[in-house]
Amino acid sequence: MKISVFFTCLILLSGFCCYSQNIFKRENNSPKNVILMIGDGMGTSQIYAGMVANKNTLNLERAQFIGFHKNQSADSFITDSAAGATALSIGKKTKNSAVGVDADGKPQMTILEAAEKKGLATGMVVTCSMTHATPASFIAHQPYRGLTQEIAADFLKTDIDVFIGGGRNDFDKRKDGLNLIDSLKAHDYQIAGSILEVQKIKSGKMAGFLADKEPPRFSAGRADQLSKSADAAIDILKQNKKGFFLMVEGSQIDWGGHTNNLKYITEEVVDFDKVIGQVFDFAQKDGNTLVIITADHETGGLSIRGGSTKTGEIKGSFSTKKHTGVMIPVFAFGPGAEAFAGIYENTAIFDKMIEALRLK
Amino acid sequence: MKISVFFTCLILLSGFCCYSQNIFKRENNSPKNVILMIGDGMGTSQIYAGMVANKNTLNLERAQFIGFHKNQSADSFITDSAAGATALSIGKKTKNSAVGVDADGKPQMTILEAAEKKGLATGMVVTCSMTHATPASFIAHQPYRGLTQEIAADFLKTDIDVFIGGGRNDFDKRKDGLNLIDSLKAHDYQIAGSILEVQKIKSGKMAGFLADKEPPRFSAGRADQLSKSADAAIDILKQNKKGFFLMVEGSQIDWGGHTNNLKYITEEVVDFDKVIGQVFDFAQKDGNTLVIITADHETGGLSIRGGSTKTGEIKGSFSTKKHTGVMIPVFAFGPGAEAFAGIYENTAIFDKMIEALRLK
Repeated sequence: MKISVFFTCLILLSGFCCYSQNIFKRENNSPKNVILMIGDGMGTSQIYAGMVANKNTLNLERAQFIGFHKNQSADSFITDSAAGATALSIGKKTKNSAVGVDADGKPQMTILEAAEKKGLATGMVVTCSMTHATPASFIAHQPYRGLTQEIAADFLKTDIDVFIGGGRNDFDKRKDGLNLIDSLKAHDYQIAGSILEVQKIKSGKMAGFLADKEPPRFSAGRADQLSKSADAAIDILKQNKKGFFLMVEGSQIDWGGHTNNLKYITEEVVDFDKVIGQVFDFAQKDGNTLVIITADHETGGLSIRGGSTKTGEIKGSFSTKKHTGVMIPVFAFGPGAEAFAGIYENTAIFDKMIEALRLK
Repeated sequence: MKISVFFTCLILLSGFCCYSQNIFKRENNSPKNVILMIGDGMGTSQIYAGMVANKNTLNLERAQFIGFHKNQSADSFITDSAAGATALSIGKKTKNSAVGVDADGKPQMTILEAAEKKGLATGMVVTCSMTHATPASFIAHQPYRGLTQEIAADFLKTDIDVFIGGGRNDFDKRKDGLNLIDSLKAHDYQIAGSILEVQKIKSGKMAGFLADKEPPRFSAGRADQLSKSADAAIDILKQNKKGFFLMVEGSQIDWGGHTNNLKYITEEVVDFDKVIGQVFDFAQKDGNTLVIITADHETGGLSIRGGSTKTGEIKGSFSTKKHTGVMIPVFAFGPGAEAFAGIYENTAIFDKMIEALRLK
């Protein structure tokens, strides 16, 4: 009988090994953290222009899975950044210009708010004002993106842990006379007014205001602020044992498109890609972080007319100073990344993130 | 001891189950057949234009994995169809205009020839002349795509099982006075001169000539010839127990781009997509077929300026009547499809196909 007991143990062990392998696989596909990276106005052409300018390589190429999303808004074939970001933040199509509300103007819980509600740490790091359409869509609930002072006030209604960007004036130079910087302090936020101050804050809550209005473009003085801000944010957010949700936006790729300035675009794509690289490094080391990189829409109708992958020279043509309607690539890295393969509506990205973080 | 023997058997059985599961997975990732579908000139914008025209849906959306390829040729940032197709067919960058030869003009074995050599059945089905750059690159070895009569002669040098397209004149109205149709007959080819004749041939070798020069566009009389030709080709090729390699080209998407004719483009994309749907159906039922859909390059610098996913209306702008350099999406379906996720040079598609079919 001793022999049979031995074999029974072996069988149980063998069965457990098979089972635990499956468990591991399943666990492995459920990340603790999600980092959503939005290159505003970054379609296939903008990515490729950046890649050529960077001599035929981008960190983005390390992404494991690729998809496409369709970005039409509730009331327009051509979406704006508000409806485009809101589709990602609430999982519903809304009207152009609306932030964090559905097509009927009804406020909807955003992925950032859902994460916050479940005890995860949350953050946003952008290269525009914090009240601009994309970040606003993740935390505010307003019918018009132009209501930037109302959007600023909405920041006080969600317990976001870290936000870094421009737009200080919407917080402390307000028509209603309120000083929301004081309110933020009263809510235990540490206020950083420069990238050096951002880097000094190592825990707790932080509001980083790096510009009164819009931060300058990369080559006009902003330099590696996005990279340093993202690093600082992750260092704080990762301290939460339950995980975190972070949105990082390369906001000004879109502005390069609107001004039909290819140099502006490639400079911003390459800067954004630097952050993608460091986020991938973090995710790879961490093992529990799903990274998604996409855009809200394409800007400029850019086509790639010539260039050199050796010198980084690039020539392009633009068809418009506005947005276009083409489907937008989605790149994913880390546990759960495979869910982003395929073609789907932009709203599905919200669903996939909610599922990955088990926020239902 | 009987009990211990019983348990030993159980363990062996359990071990075998685990092992066979792995074997199954590995086997499952090695397709017997590869169908490479090339939408000439079909970049992200062309696909999306077709999707909108088809009211927000394409069969292509059933693809499981997506990648991008970089398509620069050996001597130009903007590739032509010859160098673009040759990168896919031989796995090496070559000079614009070259077919089936490397950048030094040296003939290289194509994937079709490698498959043929290993005893697989092979075929090509296109909506241009058989001697046009894309199909030529898979079977001919010429320094210039314009040498269409030399390219036609090269068809006799490889034992391709089925080819259907236009370009009959390059075979029987030749400057050298040869009648290659007679030569094809001598090589046991059954000659079909219409789509009805194509459909009547159920086994053996077939050369289908559906036009003296270039076949007409979809709406000018070609109708569903590509779909019927692909069906007929698969019905013959699948009879080979060792498997098959088939290249299907939606050749005229490119011509819509060159003429900046959006209606032409969407019509050809939707026709090509119909074939994608039937090929996916075959692959799904068969279980041993890897399908790859991509393009050689983008044509026209198309941007999507407006439209309606409900009515199928679509508005676009073109920036050129030539090709552009943007990276090109790759879609894959079936066993081994996951290898096509990511961003890579166009030549890597050859490597991945060779590996999938174990042709090394």
